Amino acid sequence: MVDRVYNFSPGPATLPYEVLQQASKDVVNFKETGIGLIEISHRSKEFMAVADETESLLRELMEIPDNYKVLFLQGGASSQFFMIPMNLLSHGKKATYLNTGTWAKKAIKEAKLFGDIDVAFSSEEASFNKVPTQDEYTVDSASEFLYLVSNNTIYGTQFPEFPVTEKLLVSDMSSDILSRKIDVSKFGLIFAGAQKNMGPAGVTVVIIREDLLDRTPENTPTMLTYKTHADKGSMFNTPPCFAIYAVGEVLKWLKKLGGVAAMEEINKEKAGLLYDCIDGTDFYRGHAEKNSRSLMNITFNLPTPELEVQFVAEAATIGLNGLKGHRSIGGCRASIYNAFPREGVIKLVDFMKEFETKNKG
Amino acid sequence: MVDRVYNFSPGPATLPYEVLQQASKDVVNFKETGIGLIEISHRSKEFMAVADETESLLRELMEIPDNYKVLFLQGGASSQFFMIPMNLLSHGKKATYLNTGTWAKKAIKEAKLFGDIDVAFSSEEASFNKVPTQDEYTVDSASEFLYLVSNNTIYGTQFPEFPVTEKLLVSDMSSDILSRKIDVSKFGLIFAGAQKNMGPAGVTVVIIREDLLDRTPENTPTMLTYKTHADKGSMFNTPPCFAIYAVGEVLKWLKKLGGVAAMEEINKEKAGLLYDCIDGTDFYRGHAEKNSRSLMNITFNLPTPELEVQFVAEAATIGLNGLKGHRSIGGCRASIYNAFPREGVIKLVDFMKEFETKNKG
Repeated sequence: MVDRVYNFSPGPATLPYEVLQQASKDVVNFKETGIGLIEISHRSKEFMAVADETESLLRELMEIPDNYKVLFLQGGASSQFFMIPMNLLSHGKKATYLNTGTWAKKAIKEAKLFGDIDVAFSSEEASFNKVPTQDEYTVDSASEFLYLVSNNTIYGTQFPEFPVTEKLLVSDMSSDILSRKIDVSKFGLIFAGAQKNMGPAGVTVVIIREDLLDRTPENTPTMLTYKTHADKGSMFNTPPCFAIYAVGEVLKWLKKLGGVAAMEEINKEKAGLLYDCIDGTDFYRGHAEKNSRSLMNITFNLPTPELEVQFVAEAATIGLNGLKGHRSIGGCRASIYNAFPREGVIKLVDFMKEFETKNKG
Repeated sequence: MVDRVYNFSPGPATLPYEVLQQASKDVVNFKETGIGLIEISHRSKEFMAVADETESLLRELMEIPDNYKVLFLQGGASSQFFMIPMNLLSHGKKATYLNTGTWAKKAIKEAKLFGDIDVAFSSEEASFNKVPTQDEYTVDSASEFLYLVSNNTIYGTQFPEFPVTEKLLVSDMSSDILSRKIDVSKFGLIFAGAQKNMGPAGVTVVIIREDLLDRTPENTPTMLTYKTHADKGSMFNTPPCFAIYAVGEVLKWLKKLGGVAAMEEINKEKAGLLYDCIDGTDFYRGHAEKNSRSLMNITFNLPTPELEVQFVAEAATIGLNGLKGHRSIGGCRASIYNAFPREGVIKLVDFMKEFETKNKG
């Protein structure tokens, strides 16, 4: 047994240990084929079975309706920032975006290359410390879709519920997919980079309602057209086999654990332990407004930047790694995605209490 | 020790066994960090060191001049088919392409979305059984670049030498990069998907002359602009960490073995064994014209399609896997990239001789 540390990294992020162990075996010799998983043909029956199983598990766990396609793409969530407007917004048409953080802002920048983008809400002036409630913005009636980032990794905010609208909803769920139950049928398109809640870096999941596949303008490059990948089961070209495999292993782990509903309860409890600690003192201050708090990324400050540096360094010495906040807001951040163990959260809470006692001056 | 088979798959393709063994360890616990390689932050000093070492090894092994950038991108070689003209061809400008196979043809299709494409040579009518010599085509003086596929995986053809031209040379080297010495300074851009000669699927290497980074039209999406990735050392967004790591391990193996020049000699010998076998009989017929023969993919036919089916099936029973030719030309294909062991080639030659004796009727 390896001496594991608690890795609070925001992504790539900690994975279930049993997934790492299985991958370690399969990399060298996949299913006793005498061929390693990372050298086996993507057209082999062994790998096709992996790809099929990964897709079915995702469909089962997220209860994805039959009229949605599930794509496994490359290029990261960042590539979806332009692929979405490139495919869904014919030139000149309008879409509404909610500016709740760095990743929303980047998506807005790319969308403006393709259409008329209406930014209906922004919390930028308040260091993105909240997401809006539905009465804080209006969606222009001419908009083709409403775009939002479900969970804002850097700022530790999360939509507690999704907008109710007749518009197509498009959501970046990179940092909270599979962490809570959602109704996929309310969305036109959902996407997520794998490296937070699903697996290693290198694959991005896109869940798209079938009828939207016909909106892509002619003359869009083949590889940038969603339909290309939908029609070929994400095998139009060689897919990122290892990353897809690893996502499949994470999904098996999640299923065994009870699925998304069970995971949601665990996530609420884990985040609750940290928020209770923060709320029980003046030493720690949460960055996010209470009703915008994320269950995935807990952002907080200490009384001074010097104490924050000391906190992060001391934590690392006892195996609590990666607690430094993102440079854009500073402070501390504990990323506790699905695979982050409850014991690590308890160890952090204990450390926070001790650190406070020693340093409250 | 795992019971390995000889995997003649055209890609993803066999990797050095020591690379698989190292990956197997690192996946679970990378450099005794207590964090697995596939869950460690791409911004961690440990992963940054991996990315830096991978790039330096590639620069060293290929003798890449300082005025070239090396990028590690996602999206497969197929994404380069549109990224190249998108970045290098302003609308309406001309480029010359040589149509030597399926992958060249796909690149031509995408390029036509961006510029005026002159197809100066095609061997399509002869089932792509050859690449042209320089006197078989003319490059239009208005062309911005000359595009060619260095090795044609499906048809088993390879340019024995590269065109001498004042034009910018752009080459898809997906299936022969690092297999023979080339002079990078003669090229404007070289690209290659990793999954044949460099590592697992999931990363594409682009080697681009620095001055070309300024040709991208404004309003090109950020992720599709080469300069974005060049300026950030391929870390603009989360890179495909595992694939980059594995490429690095393959490069270490190649260096230990003597580098590209030593590899080239080994490749000539391996391919020579198979071509000698094919040329020594009428039972086997090579698909490619002799002066266009590939050192990487050896394509051949048997007297009848039925015998070919039998050949592929019998070979598999003795651990010679993946010998079926691509559906577009049928027949048989032995893909023997850098990591394919010489002993596997000898075993195949022995099998071919036996099979001939038994079946020549």
